[in-house]
Amino acid sequence: MSNYRITIRYDGARYKGWQRLGKDAGGDSITSKLESVLSLLCDEEIRVIGSGRTDAGVHAMAQVANFHTERKLTDQEILEYAARYLPDDIAVVAAEEADERFHARYQVTEKSYIYRIDAGLYPDPFQRKYAWHISESLDYDAMRQAADLLKGTHDFGGFTSMKSKTKSAERNLTGIEIEEPPSEENPFAVIRFTGEGFLHNMVRIITGTLVEVGLGSRPVGSVSEILKAGRREDAAAKAPAKGLFLESVKYR
Amino acid sequence: MSNYRITIRYDGARYKGWQRLGKDAGGDSITSKLESVLSLLCDEEIRVIGSGRTDAGVHAMAQVANFHTERKLTDQEILEYAARYLPDDIAVVAAEEADERFHARYQVTEKSYIYRIDAGLYPDPFQRKYAWHISESLDYDAMRQAADLLKGTHDFGGFTSMKSKTKSAERNLTGIEIEEPPSEENPFAVIRFTGEGFLHNMVRIITGTLVEVGLGSRPVGSVSEILKAGRREDAAAKAPAKGLFLESVKYR
Repeated sequence: MSNYRITIRYDGARYKGWQRLGKDAGGDSITSKLESVLSLLCDEEIRVIGSGRTDAGVHAMAQVANFHTERKLTDQEILEYAARYLPDDIAVVAAEEADERFHARYQVTEKSYIYRIDAGLYPDPFQRKYAWHISESLDYDAMRQAADLLKGTHDFGGFTSMKSKTKSAERNLTGIEIEEPPSEENPFAVIRFTGEGFLHNMVRIITGTLVEVGLGSRPVGSVSEILKAGRREDAAAKAPAKGLFLESVKYR
Repeated sequence: MSNYRITIRYDGARYKGWQRLGKDAGGDSITSKLESVLSLLCDEEIRVIGSGRTDAGVHAMAQVANFHTERKLTDQEILEYAARYLPDDIAVVAAEEADERFHARYQVTEKSYIYRIDAGLYPDPFQRKYAWHISESLDYDAMRQAADLLKGTHDFGGFTSMKSKTKSAERNLTGIEIEEPPSEENPFAVIRFTGEGFLHNMVRIITGTLVEVGLGSRPVGSVSEILKAGRREDAAAKAPAKGLFLESVKYR
């Protein structure tokens, strides 16, 4: 039995997400496309284990996954087969044989996400599926102050769609960096989130809340109150899926 | 009667081109979308005059057009109406009242196009509609030497799909600059074409031919022979539409 690690880049626009669960399993997910192609390559049913799920419409620069197979494969075989048979909005960009104990979900030490905001006056036609368009001007300094209050280890129960009250919502958000649009020709703001793990919808709900701070419709300090009270309804609506990219995943 | 000048940015992927002619008139062209929306805004039938046509699948960063109307419009009205009613892959990014004699096609003094090549080992899912993927390595120096031979005023009859033998094929190609991919993370080469005017498919046929030079499948000097003989069949097939962008249009 061999264990292979693959890195996947995908445009999530037309998919139901990385993986569909329960009665929705299969269908138009990134995992189902990968599993079909790898099962053909390996001539046995392949299950792909991702570093974590991404929601419908969310993209990945470099998602990481692993799969087990009886077949002996070269990196080249995996890459070429994937390039030939996957749809053109999904690409395997790296492949290598991994230690038999490597597990793409359990051994993550750091993940980073970026959220892209199109801050141009009118939405850029080329970025309509890859950024959230906000034409009102944003106060990036206020957003940075609010972001700083969220850094570190907190109970992020107010910033997740996760229903469970029994599982811990404590996470260590090691970084939130906000880059302003560099110029009028390149009016894209980027918020980069780094941490060991994130709750369901946490990045999008934090982004929605930071944007409300940037618009002046909520005070900087309100984010501390959300952390303290832990009530989802105190935070903003989640930012649209299309602006979110899983940027990288690191392992020990 | 007022004359308005507009600048349009569009993702050409799902269109039949800037404009369809003859029995194909109307339908899925950028012009037909603009004309529908502007006709509604002005409450009369509007005809849009572009700086020139772009083919099916070709994009524009900044196409320029003008239209006449009895209505008195503010720049803001045009921009807002276009943002609200145009499909999200077409945007009017600038609008202003122009001199009554301004004509978007006849008064062009310079146009620039860029052609984007994805030189990564595997095609980037996010660029599948915005670049031509070529995994074989390209000799950019050879391509630059060939490009230099094409600069200046020549009869470009060998580099066009234009059938007419009566119209002049003489054009002044003032620039062809080739930028190599800056890094492995950003493996995109860009060829920038500048000139007063271009023949039908000229940029794509020159690009296809330069790529063959870059691949080593034709000698640098062959481009001079194509210029001299003027036979379309001596040049390469035209490069795919999806890598081509009308970048800018200048007027006197």
